[in-house]
Amino acid sequence: MTNTQVTLVQLDNYGPWTVTPTPRREVDLQTLQSRLYADLSQAFGMRDGYVFFTRFDNMLAVTNGLDLEDHARIQESIRNRYPVTVSLSIGTGASPAKGLVDATAALQDQGSAQDAERTEALLGQPIEESERTDEDVQIAHFDVVDATGKYTDELDAFSSFIHIEQGYAELMKYMHDAHDSLSFFVGGDNIIAVCPALTEADYADAIDHVREAAGVDLRVGVGHGVSPHDAGMGAKHALEDAREEQSAVEILAGR
Amino acid sequence: MTNTQVTLVQLDNYGPWTVTPTPRREVDLQTLQSRLYADLSQAFGMRDGYVFFTRFDNMLAVTNGLDLEDHARIQESIRNRYPVTVSLSIGTGASPAKGLVDATAALQDQGSAQDAERTEALLGQPIEESERTDEDVQIAHFDVVDATGKYTDELDAFSSFIHIEQGYAELMKYMHDAHDSLSFFVGGDNIIAVCPALTEADYADAIDHVREAAGVDLRVGVGHGVSPHDAGMGAKHALEDAREEQSAVEILAGR
Amino acid sequence: MTNTQVTLVQLDNYGPWTVTPTPRREVDLQTLQSRLYADLSQAFGMRDGYVFFTRFDNMLAVTNGLDLEDHARIQESIRNRYPVTVSLSIGTGASPAKGLVDATAALQDQGSAQDAERTEALLGQPIEESERTDEDVQIAHFDVVDATGKYTDELDAFSSFIHIEQGYAELMKYMHDAHDSLSFFVGGDNIIAVCPALTEADYADAIDHVREAAGVDLRVGVGHGVSPHDAGMGAKHALEDAREEQSAVEILAGR
Amino acid sequence: MTNTQVTLVQLDNYGPWTVTPTPRREVDLQTLQSRLYADLSQAFGMRDGYVFFTRFDNMLAVTNGLDLEDHARIQESIRNRYPVTVSLSIGTGASPAKGLVDATAALQDQGSAQDAERTEALLGQPIEESERTDEDVQIAHFDVVDATGKYTDELDAFSSFIHIEQGYAELMKYMHDAHDSLSFFVGGDNIIAVCPALTEADYADAIDHVREAAGVDLRVGVGHGVSPHDAGMGAKHALEDAREEQSAVEILAGR
Repeated sequence: MTNTQVTLVQLDNYGPWTVTPTPRREVDLQTLQSRLYADLSQAFGMRDGYVFFTRFDNMLAVTNGLDLEDHARIQESIRNRYPVTVSLSIGTGASPAKGLVDATAALQDQGSAQDAERTEALLGQPIEESERTDEDVQIAHFDVVDATGKYTDELDAFSSFIHIEQGYAELMKYMHDAHDSLSFFVGGDNIIAVCPALTEADYADAIDHVREAAGVDLRVGVGHGVSPHDAGMGAKHALEDAREEQSAVEILAGR
Repeated sequence: MTNTQVTLVQLDNYGPWTVTPTPRREVDLQTLQSRLYADLSQAFGMRDGYVFFTRFDNMLAVTNGLDLEDHARIQESIRNRYPVTVSLSIGTGASPAKGLVDATAALQDQGSAQDAERTEALLGQPIEESERTDEDVQIAHFDVVDATGKYTDELDAFSSFIHIEQGYAELMKYMHDAHDSLSFFVGGDNIIAVCPALTEADYADAIDHVREAAGVDLRVGVGHGVSPHDAGMGAKHALEDAREEQSAVEILAGR
Repeated sequence: MTNTQVTLVQLDNYGPWTVTPTPRREVDLQTLQSRLYADLSQAFGMRDGYVFFTRFDNMLAVTNGLDLEDHARIQESIRNRYPVTVSLSIGTGASPAKGLVDATAALQDQGSAQDAERTEALLGQPIEESERTDEDVQIAHFDVVDATGKYTDELDAFSSFIHIEQGYAELMKYMHDAHDSLSFFVGGDNIIAVCPALTEADYADAIDHVREAAGVDLRVGVGHGVSPHDAGMGAKHALEDAREEQSAVEILAGR
Repeated sequence: MTNTQVTLVQLDNYGPWTVTPTPRREVDLQTLQSRLYADLSQAFGMRDGYVFFTRFDNMLAVTNGLDLEDHARIQESIRNRYPVTVSLSIGTGASPAKGLVDATAALQDQGSAQDAERTEALLGQPIEESERTDEDVQIAHFDVVDATGKYTDELDAFSSFIHIEQGYAELMKYMHDAHDSLSFFVGGDNIIAVCPALTEADYADAIDHVREAAGVDLRVGVGHGVSPHDAGMGAKHALEDAREEQSAVEILAGR
């Protein structure tokens, strides 16, 4: 059984800040957001965590292996280097979606995302080190079958993007509603999903759904591990196998 | 009439690089991609251009005001500081979607996105400085009505994201197919669209479509200008007006 | 005759900020400072300017070609993305050292570097575009003769650094006092000096001084141009020539 | 007794790269170097290490608490995100200067800093976790007495810099030759030294030397700890005490 630790990263009172005293230059906001994400990616990543940009003002991280002190340090480092601060809320459990429900609720209890008084909340309890296992994190890495040949080299760049985007929109909703998973577009034609202990049939089902609903043909590699990095690297290798075998779903057995 | 200059930014042979010799750490790829985007945002932005992350390996910029030398310098700066290179292809015209079709076709003519021999292409012709007018760029800035109250502070963070994402997926497809526009999610609940000379009725139509198709309630401010920054800043101010007036569409008259 | 435009970049009230409310983590300060410098380097550099890190809380830029609007935009971009702000003060003239005296005095007139009320000053007058000439900027690029063979590959890393550092300390003082020049260590064994219209004899004299005072053997290439980038690139090519010719001073004739 | 773990970070074959095929734009090199330093600062800092920019192509880190795997990960992350690679060599011992001698010698044995074949060396043995103590790292944080009042607000910016620089050049040489310490300018008027177990008299002696040799008046706070961060934060607090007490040397007793 999986035991995923998710962390909700929410910028404090960010919306109002972007238009105070007047709207700030868009290129500066884009730079701020993407660099903040890059920094979190390195900071969580140094301890084998993953973070996804999601909405940029609300980012989602998978943080098995990071304790409260690690979270506090990351929070402090952002405060020391950016004009904005972040709140962090941790949730855990067999279902990533459910863990995030808990993490979000705890943060909402502290006040609104646009409450100027609620800054740098640090909430929730990480998984005890002694309870961590190699089954804790399951990660699925999807990509689009022959995206370069069918889209990038064939269609104009926005039409390609529409296909990728429609595929993602279908997958992220379906994987959440049907399989309690959190799926994130990570660039190119790649989607990474954080999942409970799903089966090969579950993944095949999701791929079928996307093909029918959006006409986009996906493939997936699945890995598991004690940390997001371990599970994610397993998923990448499984995806390489799937490409080679021309199969739709490859699940990496124990590492 | 608008005369938009779009630039397709394509990382050269990036997909193969990410898995050579074996899959690279995901957090490093995420950091690389988001920092490259941040740098382009500043580089184009210093000359009043906009760039959108799109798929990260294919980014789209609106570059009215940047000439070939500016493009070449940005290309050189990336080569000097990153382990990857970029190709740039410029297209222009009254329709942003059509301009991008031309830009993409020119690049595809030079070789595949995964052709190791095709590096640092620099294609297309910018608009002559003498032909630039205050009507050249039309930008629409959408956001979700009461996103914080209805989603962020109410639902769990992924369910909020699903709503934002479904709204975006509908809008980006509809604006492209019906209105020749290129729409980009830029974080939070914000979408920026690069448009031809659309009317208030066109925008109202798009908002109606998204409400019906995805159940998401949008609002939009529209600006125009000689550069993306001018048009985009106009759109931001118009959106502030729309929020205050509780109207669905605000178009900023001549600046 | 040269006509150098220098800009003093001073972080506003930075010292107190670094210890408020208690001393901030050193690694975060180092990251903040070096990234701010990197951003300024790109921002000034996009318009052919140079900036040197100097003390990091006081940086010096050579900005021939950047007008007040360019300066204001850079200032705004820092404010939008960092927890600190910068003041900028421009000075011009045949002597870089004298230009900086004027720029500093103007800023000091507005208040102390640790005055919480003095923020984002923007002072001085850039050179008129119509008055700019190819003789405006003279840049000298020094390096240490066979630094790798004599130091890096021979001594321990700190002893090598001591030699480089003593050479720099001598050169920067001598070039300032004797030749009205501003010299900056730029990494490795490289020093870049911004100079008035010096002669080959002047450079030979400075090299002699450093050899006698610090026992460090320098070589220099000199270039000039309408912008720091043009002059600096000329200097780099002249230095390549000096390496090849094994000469001490090479001055690039008109480009 | 101290037991400092130092790591030499050397960019592989960097000098030749900066001029291949022709000299690269200086602003890009400056950006590359300072961002690489910033990234290392965060990466080592996440595990309580310190890194100093030194010559940028040769950086020095104090890494008590980081094992070989941590070093390897940092090395991998640089390779994945930069156009250059780094070699790392670890040395340990009661004397920081001697530890660095060992680290440098081990790396020189592998080949020249400009040997194209020597890439990503990873050498030396970290201190065993079980042997680490609260006395391992001693850090001294110097600053200039009333630098703002005497220099920054009084002299022109380069003359201020000359004073700071001459003070640093004297201190870094003296502390190395007399006290086996590695001293680094860290911006503003701050110098951080990594020291063996020095006494209050040793520090007073160094301050006297700099006053006599360079006419610059220093003050110092000293801390110790199991990690560079712990020792360095102690030093910062001690320096705050010294400022308040108007004393020249403050050594923080056991934390």
